[in-house]
Amino acid sequence: MSDNKEFVKEITNMDEDFAQWYTDVIRKTDLVDYSPVKGFMVIKPYGYAIWENIQQYLDIRFKQTGHKNMYFPLLIPESLLNKEKEHVEGFAPEVAWVTHGGDNELGEKLCIRPTSETIICHMYSKWLKSYRELPYLNNQWCSVVRWEKATRPFLRTSEFLWQEGHTLHETEQEAQDETIQMLNIYSEMAKELLAIPMVSGIKSEKEKFAGAEATYTIEALMHDGKALQSGTSHNLAQHFTKAFDITYLDRNSKLQHPYHTSWGVSTRLIGGLIMVHSDNRGLVLPPRVAPTQVVIVPVMQKKAGVLDRAYELKKELQDLGVRVDLDDSPNYSPGWKFNEYEMKGVPIRIEIGPRDIKNGVAMVARRDTLTKDQYELEGIGEAMKTLLENVHEDMYNKALAMREEKTYIVETYDELKDKMNTKPGFAKAMWCGCDECEAKIKSDTGATIRCMPFEQEKLSETCLVCGEKADKMVYLARAY
Amino acid sequence: MSDNKEFVKEITNMDEDFAQWYTDVIRKTDLVDYSPVKGFMVIKPYGYAIWENIQQYLDIRFKQTGHKNMYFPLLIPESLLNKEKEHVEGFAPEVAWVTHGGDNELGEKLCIRPTSETIICHMYSKWLKSYRELPYLNNQWCSVVRWEKATRPFLRTSEFLWQEGHTLHETEQEAQDETIQMLNIYSEMAKELLAIPMVSGIKSEKEKFAGAEATYTIEALMHDGKALQSGTSHNLAQHFTKAFDITYLDRNSKLQHPYHTSWGVSTRLIGGLIMVHSDNRGLVLPPRVAPTQVVIVPVMQKKAGVLDRAYELKKELQDLGVRVDLDDSPNYSPGWKFNEYEMKGVPIRIEIGPRDIKNGVAMVARRDTLTKDQYELEGIGEAMKTLLENVHEDMYNKALAMREEKTYIVETYDELKDKMNTKPGFAKAMWCGCDECEAKIKSDTGATIRCMPFEQEKLSETCLVCGEKADKMVYLARAY
Repeated sequence: MSDNKEFVKEITNMDEDFAQWYTDVIRKTDLVDYSPVKGFMVIKPYGYAIWENIQQYLDIRFKQTGHKNMYFPLLIPESLLNKEKEHVEGFAPEVAWVTHGGDNELGEKLCIRPTSETIICHMYSKWLKSYRELPYLNNQWCSVVRWEKATRPFLRTSEFLWQEGHTLHETEQEAQDETIQMLNIYSEMAKELLAIPMVSGIKSEKEKFAGAEATYTIEALMHDGKALQSGTSHNLAQHFTKAFDITYLDRNSKLQHPYHTSWGVSTRLIGGLIMVHSDNRGLVLPPRVAPTQVVIVPVMQKKAGVLDRAYELKKELQDLGVRVDLDDSPNYSPGWKFNEYEMKGVPIRIEIGPRDIKNGVAMVARRDTLTKDQYELEGIGEAMKTLLENVHEDMYNKALAMREEKTYIVETYDELKDKMNTKPGFAKAMWCGCDECEAKIKSDTGATIRCMPFEQEKLSETCLVCGEKADKMVYLARAY
Repeated sequence: MSDNKEFVKEITNMDEDFAQWYTDVIRKTDLVDYSPVKGFMVIKPYGYAIWENIQQYLDIRFKQTGHKNMYFPLLIPESLLNKEKEHVEGFAPEVAWVTHGGDNELGEKLCIRPTSETIICHMYSKWLKSYRELPYLNNQWCSVVRWEKATRPFLRTSEFLWQEGHTLHETEQEAQDETIQMLNIYSEMAKELLAIPMVSGIKSEKEKFAGAEATYTIEALMHDGKALQSGTSHNLAQHFTKAFDITYLDRNSKLQHPYHTSWGVSTRLIGGLIMVHSDNRGLVLPPRVAPTQVVIVPVMQKKAGVLDRAYELKKELQDLGVRVDLDDSPNYSPGWKFNEYEMKGVPIRIEIGPRDIKNGVAMVARRDTLTKDQYELEGIGEAMKTLLENVHEDMYNKALAMREEKTYIVETYDELKDKMNTKPGFAKAMWCGCDECEAKIKSDTGATIRCMPFEQEKLSETCLVCGEKADKMVYLARAY
């Protein structure tokens, strides 16, 4: 117990200082480290394994829906970046410029991709000839660089890992269907893998991607009542396909510009994962994305038979497809190990000692509820598989309840201003749709329109801010 | 047949112009394209799928041997690159420099990683405290940039995809064991996945990695008799760990520098795959790495029952874990499709038409031998699995025979000079070990010492060049 107390002290209480709590958790659990280049982080094995699980889930979903992976160059000539007007205005201030190759100054400076629409559209314009080749359904996994002034690991960094899908279609409708399909895959990934409930909707004109016709988003609510944009899917219409002169011969042998989408999620999801589920003892990882799902900690491991039985148990779980570790290190006490894996958010811990073995049982501790139960060793493998599923469901429901508790309707502008300070969360409100009201909300409250959700409710007839006629219900929140 | 003839004409005959043949094959089979940035290529879906199969094989082998994936930043400060003297001399002339972030000039210029020893060692020096944490066994999958003057897709490009392993160990012996273990995994990958036989050995001092104590290599022989360095594994001793002051407390509480290795393979392997196996009709892909292993082409597909039976066959193969495509496009004739998949190197093509179905058979064409055989439809799935294994074995043996045919002993220096022009290949010869003889061989013949192979033979007592005492047998070849 003394270990435990001492340990927990190392992580700042989230109610005292949420930002410091977040930093403590990611550093003490060895997910990331800061690199010598400001704003660039190192993703350590435990953090990277979470990303690999996200990649694996999504890559399968992408391929099932007909997408193929490609790889486009890291560097984009300035002239290409400049082709789509809104796009360059949005991104040029935050790109990194390569000016020298070896000892030579380059004739044209090259930017490190902040996103790849421009280089991909340039290539698509060379390739596409006929409607027969459509749709183009491609994706790439890579890193991108956006020079950020204020950075926080996972949430906002000057380099991050992501995937970016880039598709072309014959019709406006097909592009729209693709945009929504990919948003739904993101939302399902969040629910099924990360146990995070998302609000899906469309961004305002002001908040949409630079160059998009429409941007759709999934938004999650964090423990501190702030929102996190967790994935976006853009209907780019013909904005880029015209700027890059991508054309094809249609079914009537007429030259047409195709319709275009792009969509992405990034390592930012890991930040969301932490801020939704974790607690003052450290990480709480949902089982399906946890690098280790079950850890076995032997007790009195020097006693005859304990380690043998523990290894047998490990094999049983492995054979059932559970990601299981056994910590047989003689250098640390069981108590130290309990704390360590609790902090690291391993969903289930099994403790097994000589008395347990004699009685044919083991103690099973759940990270999410911090409860402990005795299980029969006979059939414990299948029981753990069921328990992992239950933990996932319970974590999702807990996150959903947390979000619902922090989601409320605001009827007056004063109420919004008050609530954003006293009860940060998702405020549902009616908005007239004009830029001025949107800007006013932001400057007065720090909240932004996170999205106009697909699931609309008619809260009133008038805009929260200006009192004019309003038919859009929006989610407002302060955001990361 | 007219289609076929016309088609084959589009690919230059490899005996007439091997370089042009290579370019034709990779362009016409849609593996890559040139990007607007000189020396940077786009890897298209068919090429990327080959890389994904290589990644999948290696990632499993790396994890089975205890390695974990991480991600280190893309950008490295100049001051870090400069820390290891030989390393910076080797790489500084070919790095890309970032000098501006957004509108601001950077205080210190940053290079895009040409390889990550420096940034990784910097981080390792922050992390490592005790021998208990050793070994460090890490890997990353990423792209690197080396500014090249003359580039060729896959073989030498200014950006390429690779993996780089970076490990630390307590003892010299452990680092040496790791270096050889990873080289052996590369060699096994080449044999088991790519059906390419490799010569394994150690590089000369002149050819080793900038900063290494010793570099080990796997070398393959191409159709044109030139060698391709296909993967390297470096024993870095304490060169970097001293330069970066990485220390730990050993078992006796003494401060020590750990021993260090790094190892990598890249998309260059795909170039080797092509130049070992392919022919004048296009690609020939070994089954285990082929994106599509079997393609089903229906004949007279409008006749009742043909497509139904073809889909049934597809499902049968899918259920057996075969990567199978069915081309039911009404826009192209079966003859066109036969040529298309032949060119794309799909290992097995199944042709199935109304008469075949009536007779309970299908025609099966092998890409590697260009032979066609009739198979009973009953049990054809299992038969194809066996056939795919046979194709792999046959392709490996054919590549081995090709290499053996082009490998020979040279006893005199004149013989070497003659053979490098008349019969390019691996020349086995004795070398005294001195830099002068090595440099002379290169300037006189264009051949370099590819390696001193693990399997040594005593061909004579004296150096091929200077006639002094020699105890090293080397493989000499012109190389990519």
